[in-house]
Amino acid sequence: MKMSNIGVIGLGIMGKNIALNMLNHGFEVSGYNRTFERTKVLINENIPSFHGFEKLEDFVNSLEKPRRVFLMVPAGQSVDDVLVQLSELLEEGDIIMDGGNSYFEDTNRRHKQMDIHGLKYFGVGVSGGEEGALKGPSIMPSGDKDAYASIGKILEDISAKKDGEPCCTYIGPEGSGHYVKMVHNGIEYADMQLLAETYLILKYTAGYTNSEIADVLEQWNQGDVQSYLVDITVTVLREKDSVTEHDLVDVILDVAGNKGTGRWTSIEALRQEFNASLLTAAYQARIMSNQLALRDAYRKEITNDKKNVDIDKVHQAYKLAKTIAFAQGFDLYRDASNKYSWDLNLKQIAAIFRAGCIIQAKLLQDIMHAYDDGADDLLLYHVFKNEVLENAPALKEVIVQSIDLPLPVFTAALAYINQLTSTCLGANIIQGQRDFFGAHTYQRVDREGFEHHRWGSHE
Amino acid sequence: MKMSNIGVIGLGIMGKNIALNMLNHGFEVSGYNRTFERTKVLINENIPSFHGFEKLEDFVNSLEKPRRVFLMVPAGQSVDDVLVQLSELLEEGDIIMDGGNSYFEDTNRRHKQMDIHGLKYFGVGVSGGEEGALKGPSIMPSGDKDAYASIGKILEDISAKKDGEPCCTYIGPEGSGHYVKMVHNGIEYADMQLLAETYLILKYTAGYTNSEIADVLEQWNQGDVQSYLVDITVTVLREKDSVTEHDLVDVILDVAGNKGTGRWTSIEALRQEFNASLLTAAYQARIMSNQLALRDAYRKEITNDKKNVDIDKVHQAYKLAKTIAFAQGFDLYRDASNKYSWDLNLKQIAAIFRAGCIIQAKLLQDIMHAYDDGADDLLLYHVFKNEVLENAPALKEVIVQSIDLPLPVFTAALAYINQLTSTCLGANIIQGQRDFFGAHTYQRVDREGFEHHRWGSHE
Repeated sequence: MKMSNIGVIGLGIMGKNIALNMLNHGFEVSGYNRTFERTKVLINENIPSFHGFEKLEDFVNSLEKPRRVFLMVPAGQSVDDVLVQLSELLEEGDIIMDGGNSYFEDTNRRHKQMDIHGLKYFGVGVSGGEEGALKGPSIMPSGDKDAYASIGKILEDISAKKDGEPCCTYIGPEGSGHYVKMVHNGIEYADMQLLAETYLILKYTAGYTNSEIADVLEQWNQGDVQSYLVDITVTVLREKDSVTEHDLVDVILDVAGNKGTGRWTSIEALRQEFNASLLTAAYQARIMSNQLALRDAYRKEITNDKKNVDIDKVHQAYKLAKTIAFAQGFDLYRDASNKYSWDLNLKQIAAIFRAGCIIQAKLLQDIMHAYDDGADDLLLYHVFKNEVLENAPALKEVIVQSIDLPLPVFTAALAYINQLTSTCLGANIIQGQRDFFGAHTYQRVDREGFEHHRWGSHE
Repeated sequence: MKMSNIGVIGLGIMGKNIALNMLNHGFEVSGYNRTFERTKVLINENIPSFHGFEKLEDFVNSLEKPRRVFLMVPAGQSVDDVLVQLSELLEEGDIIMDGGNSYFEDTNRRHKQMDIHGLKYFGVGVSGGEEGALKGPSIMPSGDKDAYASIGKILEDISAKKDGEPCCTYIGPEGSGHYVKMVHNGIEYADMQLLAETYLILKYTAGYTNSEIADVLEQWNQGDVQSYLVDITVTVLREKDSVTEHDLVDVILDVAGNKGTGRWTSIEALRQEFNASLLTAAYQARIMSNQLALRDAYRKEITNDKKNVDIDKVHQAYKLAKTIAFAQGFDLYRDASNKYSWDLNLKQIAAIFRAGCIIQAKLLQDIMHAYDDGADDLLLYHVFKNEVLENAPALKEVIVQSIDLPLPVFTAALAYINQLTSTCLGANIIQGQRDFFGAHTYQRVDREGFEHHRWGSHE
């Protein structure tokens, strides 16, 4: 039997598809699962290059050195459990990759723990769902840079391709790959919510049918807001329910689930003291959809008078809010890179998001251009800045016209723009209050330093 | 020398004022500070009932048993350092109170650690700033209920009084007192930001002077939105700068500071999967005021045409947003109480906020009435619900009229109301998208259970 180039632990849907993807690219692949049943399923497919094992020790012994082990087990305790076992069986220089949605600080910790055993540990963000795992996801590996040479070819081979380039690149040290995947999902939440809000505007203010909304989005998707999410939303809107013959979206319950990465992104932004307001509002919108007691008490039919909606302005509003959402995500990367000394290559991150992952979009090409052109904070880049300022009036008009609709992310974009452009945010009032009750001091416009005032003493 | 009833460790401004407050209420008080200088300052005031010590051991030996030690040292490592020392000197049954702004999970941990030494540990939220510490703060103690009997009299004596009742009550187990203090500050951030936004509306849309805005707020403060924060904002707006003879608020830099409790509150809400959107937006507004590079690039003079602003509608909008902010805070307590099994008495929490603390307001009386009347989720209580629905049109009108102004918390309130009242939030679209790319399933309106659809297959 040939030695395997790589071994996959965890053969659920995602793990199985990753293994098949590796097999399709000509690699010898070993497989192991905690329960042997799932391994047998793959063994029974009789793929000559696949080698399934019931014992972890046999699995480990089947791998060429340095051994490469790719974990696709549920984030959390399961990862730690497998690592305890692996750290006894592997040898110095062997490499472990965690392909799950682990919290990046867990990955930081595990990187240190495995380092004690002489093992190279990689956090590997993988985006693309089941289909991506099989046909080519976007892949975000992080760990010791010198060890990347041993795994780069396999990961790049199985990744999605954009213009022939792999959608996989070395991200940075320790847990930075999982961090990048987490914020990718935060951006995803925001864009999905913006498309949901666009649907509300076109349905309730403009009075469009689902099919007409699909037509609008399909046309947008030929232009500058092109993206995978717009594309699938068109399909979602056109789908019929075979039972009722209604449009399927009309019989889907108006309650959104989530798997936690959008919440994590919002929490990390706050921990970094960074304002990712659109990403946070998108997560909060999912919470609100689950507040059934409150919604039942307050709900009333939307009685918007149908208005003559200027679709071009809705398009401008969507484009603007989407740009701010992506900019908040990428500027959050920049901030994290500085705080954690990760030296992230933001252009490369934009590049590997262009295929395979959920937020693939034409906008990422524009973001790459911006970084090529020396951009740092994306909203300071002249192209995006001009676009934001040009499209702001349309956003305002759209919100005013749909003032009765729940548009949390569009209104977060409105607040954000007005915060950028206004001479005054009222923070002078807040500093006055804070100095009054807590002697927290304030700065002045006309001289340096922090000062305290004895308020109300008329001294 | 008499034995002391209580000892204070940490004699900075807050600790000194707490000690003086205790002395003013007739208690024998011992004092200790890491550096003896600060202790000497108090010794030199020659207050007969105060006993200052250079050695921690002597300080401990001066206390009657069970010993009561009140910590007023900076949150974080300083607390842990003192606890290591104290745990060697104190005896079983002695009581330690942490009066700082400690993170509640640190307090949970310390409670367990001190329990091993047989010591009773209390997290004690204290609100009221320096003046409150001296004259009577609002106090939120948490720990073992049976041990509260030993400290309740002192804490209640030194607390603020409302209608003769102390603004101090036993809150719950472990770190719940610090949690309650944290969210108190989150509510405080929101109300401060709402007053700042009200100022922007009256100044830039209505064209009022600072003095005219003060007059408006002074009148409001006679009615249903009466609060300490409205009151001090009137003083802040009327203050003159002795140097320039300008209004002082006009020379205060438009950049807000923060000490972290508003950030913590936002993070905890997210960890609980609870939507405290107004509190979060208020913290994010403080971040935005510090984004000087972005603000310099985008800033332009506010060129709002002066409009005929209906002050009553601004009042209604403020009242509505303030009610939602307080409701989000109190419902966050309710949620935490359930999640952590704290059995919080929400009415008592509202009661002790009515004097001594920063968010003291007439609204708290209304909240007490609501709980008396059996309210659970405050926004489901008929009085608040009717008020929200009645005032929503005014909020919308105010936002439309000031669409160019940065009103992040008013617009968060708008989004929140529309989320409550709308038949559809667009979560059906999000569920369709999630099921499309991740097979995450969705529920239907017409039958139970979670279903997956093969999108685009036209099966």
